[in-house]
Amino acid sequence: MPAERVADLYRAYIDCLNSQDWENLGIYVGQDVRYNGVLVGLDGYRQAREAEFRAIPDLRFDVQILVADDTMVASRLNFDISPQGTFLGLPVNGRRISFSENVFYEFAEGKIASVWSIVDKAAIEAQLSAA
Amino acid sequence: MPAERVADLYRAYIDCLNSQDWENLGIYVGQDVRYNGVLVGLDGYRQAREAEFRAIPDLRFDVQILVADDTMVASRLNFDISPQGTFLGLPVNGRRISFSENVFYEFAEGKIASVWSIVDKAAIEAQLSAA
Repeated sequence: MPAERVADLYRAYIDCLNSQDWENLGIYVGQDVRYNGVLVGLDGYRQAREAEFRAIPDLRFDVQILVADDTMVASRLNFDISPQGTFLGLPVNGRRISFSENVFYEFAEGKIASVWSIVDKAAIEAQLSAA
Repeated sequence: MPAERVADLYRAYIDCLNSQDWENLGIYVGQDVRYNGVLVGLDGYRQAREAEFRAIPDLRFDVQILVADDTMVASRLNFDISPQGTFLGLPVNGRRISFSENVFYEFAEGKIASVWSIVDKAAIEAQLSAA
């Protein structure tokens, strides 16, 4: 698939997440999707994203950087959100925090097949300790 | 610059780091390079990398994933290294740890102009607490 088409698909996937359009998630995410090396499957992937929206009512995925080739997308996502309770093991408790996630997606047959994500936990720790 | 040429340049930059060829770092890194939003400059950038090699004698940059377009590179770097003392504020003390870094590079005039890096600190914490 041309890189531009992969990038367009990825942006549509992000729109799907932001509108919590779970019925259509399978348009973008493969049945046997892997997340950080673990086979989670489409159902597990959907459940994880739904749980995130429950724990973070103002969750929104904001693409700052997008690099695509014919099979991969790399994206830097910015978040400016207020997780309830603990988040990544940190006691955020509804405070508003800003951080980024640098994440790679491998596409196979037009759908996300593997995700490798790293969230900037150190940035969140710095904001909590400064507060 | 075509994406393939940007990818080749990036691989040459990684070889430059791994061979600690500091005299030639300026071939790949711009004078006014920014790192995570901060203007560090070529000298500051070089000093930071040199300090890393001093603190981590077995440091080696290993590219697992590389996505490039005509101005950007996204790279997932794997590390299997033994930092002396503290590393990212964690008491590693020479233990061998494995982790990844997801990082974006913006090129301008054929050189790295901006870097946005996130290291998987949570993976390191998990290894230290399991030990």
